[in-house]
Amino acid sequence: MESYPSILLENAVNQVASLPGVGRKTALRHVLHLLRQSEKDVDAFTSAIARLKKEVRYCRICHNISDQDICPICQSHKRDHHTICVVENIQDVMSIENTGQYTGIYHVLGGIISPMDGIGPKDIEVDSLMERILPEHIQEVILALPTTMEGDTTNFYIYRRLCNMLESQHNPNMVKITQLARGVAIGNELEYTDEITLGRSIVNRVAFNG
Amino acid sequence: MESYPSILLENAVNQVASLPGVGRKTALRHVLHLLRQSEKDVDAFTSAIARLKKEVRYCRICHNISDQDICPICQSHKRDHHTICVVENIQDVMSIENTGQYTGIYHVLGGIISPMDGIGPKDIEVDSLMERILPEHIQEVILALPTTMEGDTTNFYIYRRLCNMLESQHNPNMVKITQLARGVAIGNELEYTDEITLGRSIVNRVAFNG
Repeated sequence: MESYPSILLENAVNQVASLPGVGRKTALRHVLHLLRQSEKDVDAFTSAIARLKKEVRYCRICHNISDQDICPICQSHKRDHHTICVVENIQDVMSIENTGQYTGIYHVLGGIISPMDGIGPKDIEVDSLMERILPEHIQEVILALPTTMEGDTTNFYIYRRLCNMLESQHNPNMVKITQLARGVAIGNELEYTDEITLGRSIVNRVAFNG
Repeated sequence: MESYPSILLENAVNQVASLPGVGRKTALRHVLHLLRQSEKDVDAFTSAIARLKKEVRYCRICHNISDQDICPICQSHKRDHHTICVVENIQDVMSIENTGQYTGIYHVLGGIISPMDGIGPKDIEVDSLMERILPEHIQEVILALPTTMEGDTTNFYIYRRLCNMLESQHNPNMVKITQLARGVAIGNELEYTDEITLGRSIVNRVAFNG
């Protein structure tokens, strides 16, 4: 345990060290960096975080973070509102938006089903997703969850609920359910690709469209 | 440039990304981590930093960070007040304290002479160091600055000023001036030690005291 020359310093270091992946040495470096800034700059730092926490809102349609009641993506007339991409969290929306390849709308679950962490379907935004999927409006649901066991579990759970719902409405084939393509990453050497990915991408090979 | 779904979020990420060595992806992760905490926890986070900046004080003797006017080390009767260890910054005091090998007191320069960065002797606490070194009180000054060109420059500057001061007081040999031992780090393999360090530690070899 390091000894700090000041309790104020120790408190600040403890707080910064609570951030994910930040050790006490790095936290001390961050805190001393802030201490060298002007009072105005430090105030800008702390108030940006405090304001975000106090004033943050989530889009009531897709649950993405937003400054308004409905986020710009859900509001936009340029987006394809017949396609919903289901993602785990806000970062995933940003990642997909950054590709510039997707024009549909989103649904942020806010987590994935993980029995090990005690997260069940009721803890994430699955019910609100089901309410959004009206066959007369939605043509495709893209499951874009992580390629982990938890992601696969959540994919399967949503898929089953969707099929049941559509069957009970006598619309079994009205909504297309897809998932992200999986395979060897672009730019990767085969020898460095893990066995499971490589194995699956051989089994699930696609027609060459040279 | 990434597009953020919220200006509040973007501001918070910009602020956190201003910390040294924190990129925008890491900053986003930190901010979303804070967003998941309770309002009380976020308040504790921001107020610990704000309080440190507003209420921080520096020991008026050694310039170490302190909650009081004079720091616990300078106040302590258990410390050897005849020996001053000159360091660059607060972290260095903590590092030396953590060794448990030093019982003297400190002097924090708050920087080192670096003409490239426009930092001269007037920008660091050299004058206040000279005022502290009264030959009737101080027996040894340990120069514990970084083993860089800037550190060596500062060492040499302080050494010259000290010698001049002591000579003008007709006390040339009253104060011992020392520096940290330099050589191969404990636990290091010779083959991985850099050439300059290894070369100097051969030239400056010391008697074996097995």
